Amino acid sequence: MYRTHTCGELRISDVNKEVTLAGWVQTVRKFGAITFVDLRDRYGITQLLFGEDLNTLLDSNPLGREFVLQATGVVSERSSKNSHIPTGDIEISIQSFSILNKSAVPPFTIQDDTDGGDDLRMKYRFLDLRRNAVKRNLELRYAVNRSARNYLHENQFMDIETPFLIKSTPEGARDFVVPSRMNPGQFYALPQSPQTFKQLLMVSGYDRYYQIVKCFRDEDLRADRQPEFTQIDCEMAFVEQEDILNMFEGLVKRIFKDVKDIDYTDKVERMTWEDAMWQFGNDKPDIRFGMQIANLKSAFLKGGRISATGELINGAGFGVFDNAETVLAIAVPGCSEYTRKQTDELTEWVKRPQIGMQGLVFIKCNADGTYKSSVDKFYSEEKQKAIAEAAGAKAGDLVLILAGREERTRKAISELRLEMGKRLGLRKEDEFRLLWVMDFPLFEYAEEENRWVARHHPFTSPKPDQIDVMINNNPVIENADKYLEHPYSNIKANAYDMVLNGNEIGGGSIRIYQRALQEKMFAALGMSEEEALHKFGFLLGAFEYGAPPHGGIAFGFDRLCSILGGSESIRDFIAFPKNNSGRDVMLDAPSSIDDKQFDELQIKLDLK
Amino acid sequence: MYRTHTCGELRISDVNKEVTLAGWVQTVRKFGAITFVDLRDRYGITQLLFGEDLNTLLDSNPLGREFVLQATGVVSERSSKNSHIPTGDIEISIQSFSILNKSAVPPFTIQDDTDGGDDLRMKYRFLDLRRNAVKRNLELRYAVNRSARNYLHENQFMDIETPFLIKSTPEGARDFVVPSRMNPGQFYALPQSPQTFKQLLMVSGYDRYYQIVKCFRDEDLRADRQPEFTQIDCEMAFVEQEDILNMFEGLVKRIFKDVKDIDYTDKVERMTWEDAMWQFGNDKPDIRFGMQIANLKSAFLKGGRISATGELINGAGFGVFDNAETVLAIAVPGCSEYTRKQTDELTEWVKRPQIGMQGLVFIKCNADGTYKSSVDKFYSEEKQKAIAEAAGAKAGDLVLILAGREERTRKAISELRLEMGKRLGLRKEDEFRLLWVMDFPLFEYAEEENRWVARHHPFTSPKPDQIDVMINNNPVIENADKYLEHPYSNIKANAYDMVLNGNEIGGGSIRIYQRALQEKMFAALGMSEEEALHKFGFLLGAFEYGAPPHGGIAFGFDRLCSILGGSESIRDFIAFPKNNSGRDVMLDAPSSIDDKQFDELQIKLDLK
Repeated sequence: MYRTHTCGELRISDVNKEVTLAGWVQTVRKFGAITFVDLRDRYGITQLLFGEDLNTLLDSNPLGREFVLQATGVVSERSSKNSHIPTGDIEISIQSFSILNKSAVPPFTIQDDTDGGDDLRMKYRFLDLRRNAVKRNLELRYAVNRSARNYLHENQFMDIETPFLIKSTPEGARDFVVPSRMNPGQFYALPQSPQTFKQLLMVSGYDRYYQIVKCFRDEDLRADRQPEFTQIDCEMAFVEQEDILNMFEGLVKRIFKDVKDIDYTDKVERMTWEDAMWQFGNDKPDIRFGMQIANLKSAFLKGGRISATGELINGAGFGVFDNAETVLAIAVPGCSEYTRKQTDELTEWVKRPQIGMQGLVFIKCNADGTYKSSVDKFYSEEKQKAIAEAAGAKAGDLVLILAGREERTRKAISELRLEMGKRLGLRKEDEFRLLWVMDFPLFEYAEEENRWVARHHPFTSPKPDQIDVMINNNPVIENADKYLEHPYSNIKANAYDMVLNGNEIGGGSIRIYQRALQEKMFAALGMSEEEALHKFGFLLGAFEYGAPPHGGIAFGFDRLCSILGGSESIRDFIAFPKNNSGRDVMLDAPSSIDDKQFDELQIKLDLK
Repeated sequence: MYRTHTCGELRISDVNKEVTLAGWVQTVRKFGAITFVDLRDRYGITQLLFGEDLNTLLDSNPLGREFVLQATGVVSERSSKNSHIPTGDIEISIQSFSILNKSAVPPFTIQDDTDGGDDLRMKYRFLDLRRNAVKRNLELRYAVNRSARNYLHENQFMDIETPFLIKSTPEGARDFVVPSRMNPGQFYALPQSPQTFKQLLMVSGYDRYYQIVKCFRDEDLRADRQPEFTQIDCEMAFVEQEDILNMFEGLVKRIFKDVKDIDYTDKVERMTWEDAMWQFGNDKPDIRFGMQIANLKSAFLKGGRISATGELINGAGFGVFDNAETVLAIAVPGCSEYTRKQTDELTEWVKRPQIGMQGLVFIKCNADGTYKSSVDKFYSEEKQKAIAEAAGAKAGDLVLILAGREERTRKAISELRLEMGKRLGLRKEDEFRLLWVMDFPLFEYAEEENRWVARHHPFTSPKPDQIDVMINNNPVIENADKYLEHPYSNIKANAYDMVLNGNEIGGGSIRIYQRALQEKMFAALGMSEEEALHKFGFLLGAFEYGAPPHGGIAFGFDRLCSILGGSESIRDFIAFPKNNSGRDVMLDAPSSIDDKQFDELQIKLDLK
């Protein structure tokens, strides 16, 4: 037997026991004839004391960092206790030891604050994984996994495995494909999600399905995407939207409880997509703080709502506002005393290419009730007061105003709001606020192709009361300039996203379950009947044999873990992640394959 | 809300409750003005009663098999109860109903004994999955999954996900490869198992790892193989073989208890690979019954043991025995009164091409103490008695004897033993007998290439006391004819298989964890230093930084489920299996991909 105990479990009550531990040498410290070794394993660190009698043996078997050591001795009370670790009251007086394996000097220190850079740590990921910080992340990931499984099990969900070698389908361009040796010239695809399979399972009567499952997407990787990622994938039959929202806010609350010991007793707030865009400038608002956007002028996304306060700013001779498509403001609490330097810095911030604005207008709502703005010469103090009030500002606040083209300005004010929230400490890492965003548009207009695309995916149902609008109208857009007047522009999807602290952590919808409506959807997306049959014949077929109403949701497991762990990067929560080029630098993959493999697969390279 | 209850939960105590059910129409029966409908969902079947008042509505909305129906009514006590189903005491007197979706007439009946053939059921797998028999299989699969996870969790194992897009390695010919769009000309491989990753996790200090994970193998599919299959994959650090055996027989016993309510309290038997081959003719003996093989003559696998009873049969002038490399016998209990017709049929059975023997010799051990054999003219009754006793026969038994080339004869007698066990009802479906088979040879000799191959895999350690034999000898085989004299022939692996009722359900080993030994292993397998570094540099590197002793096991999850479910075929326990050509006939995958995909991947076909 290699050990009687782990390095995390011995306590003062174990004093005088003879024990054997095994683990890694974290530190070696010599004090005269005595040597102290901190021995580390997955469970903790225990101090070993090597007395004078072992010096000869230690000299011929010197211990180095990360050596694998097995040591036997007696648990003793420490003279100087360490209250920072659970084993800090004891040490082991070593009687004998054995070096199980040596270690070269690691390329970086195995500590929370390591000296290793990103690239080095990825190349030696097996060492990086030894660091406590990374271990805690993987432990949290497992805890989330376990918690989700328990909740879903208690709610009659069944884990059913769906295939990985499937058929290349809708957004085929993003499919990873796999040549088949047994079927030369033909390819499997790796699933971007188990979407159609979970729907088939509903048709089959497995009315509560889940899976924690790898999915694959071959696309250019933005900073925080991975070519393979994990979803908590769920589907239910005989449900309406309300049933799903209740079930899955229950899931996330359970995870909060199990993993973070947070009692999230509040009902999860809900917001329409339109309100989210209007008040927060994006579809995944961080509602840990307010600072909602005031619309001083704009029409919302051309089609929608008009601000009632447009008259406040127009006609004062300030061309920037007069000529802008939209003018949006936020009231930053308690910042009226910002200096010139501070407002200049904010102006530079919004002018950065990532934000892309021309400038920033501010109004200081001084504590004494006076107002001071960067556009004093256009707007009287009274007018400034009115604008500030429209923006919801109180005495002591700083109103920040951006003007310009609708889409860019909305995005910019949204970013500015988040930035100010961060600077003011309003986005607290240990505060978790959930939000359902709902009633998304079913379609988006793809300008280049003059056609509709599904905002969520082609299996999402319209709101029940809008099914007729979809069925009874021709999807063809006769006049591209007037696509907003097409009835499809206003169809809302029976879809919902779950947002946590400004991140989309899950999204789903009530699905189409009637063949006719599904065919209409494929046609609306510009798919020919033949193409629809070729790609989705099995699903259309299944809908003919008694498909029940159903819907579901998929959570981004990596993202959920990273938010719960307080990190910006999902990569920190994946044991063996890939870099931004989709490479595993530890394995050096992808890599070339040999001629025999090409030969058997009957493919060859066609490099440009 | 679509339903207040499921179709499996209402009981006599619910009488008078108003309920709404939703599900599929299993049957429609009319008795005069009354219509009975059996409504089915995942949870059971409930009888609905449509009274006379609903006839008009039923006439205009006729119900057909597999229609999706929602119905509201009052729970009533049935006049004629059905004790076969849990809801058999009640029925629902329907007040209103709604057809949620219609169904075409299914291509086969949705019943345990369906009229659908294999191909049809696979094409319409979403209907096949509705059958109770298939549903029970998937429920059993989920129960095994859940049980395994609970046990492993309670034993401090962590589920850690390993990547699916990895590097093409050792038996590269069996790798599925995946071209990378971002890295043109380069390929990922799909893992045949997470072997190297779980070893890296041990190096990283996660001393108890598990995963229930898909693995992939692109090889010609024998009857019961799938290109993608699922493993319960486990690894532990700081363990010896004994620790692993104890931990994982605990796992399987727990699964027996949770899934089959079987208390498997016996210690799991252990058998060396040599004993298994000697006594049962194969390395995965079914020990639910005895009928061990008697070696009347043979030397074991050329190198090994010699039977003490060779003199019994030689020199009697019976050339078939005299000239045979081996003569093997089993004593079939209670079959001494087999007729001529029966022994002839057995003779034909062993002559079938799958078995390939020339003939069968039998000795009847009559109840009265006399003997009668098919070789009476060569062997006296006394001699027959001696042979029968050597085979372990008692009065009333039938001794069956095969003679011929060692390997084929051993395989044949092993098959014959299993066949006789089956015919005699000794292989009971509800009896489960576990066995560890151990001490496998580390190497096998590959004749064509005149080199060693790893019997298990290249990461398996030799027995501790044989490491020196491996290190200190040159692996090169100078004289191919005498490979058995090479010291490597006798090295035993620190490996173990778990066998259940004659099936290998799991296999594992203690791993090599020293770089020098691992390099020696790669060299022994004929890998150049360069090749070893190219393919496994990351693992060799990891072994330099403090790799702990470790080992593990992987269970074939599909197979385990099929045995527990009493089925021969793993396909019955996979929601969406592939056929023998690796095709998903429901999806019609694999299939062609379009020019744009070839273009982006920078590959093209090279069909022969």
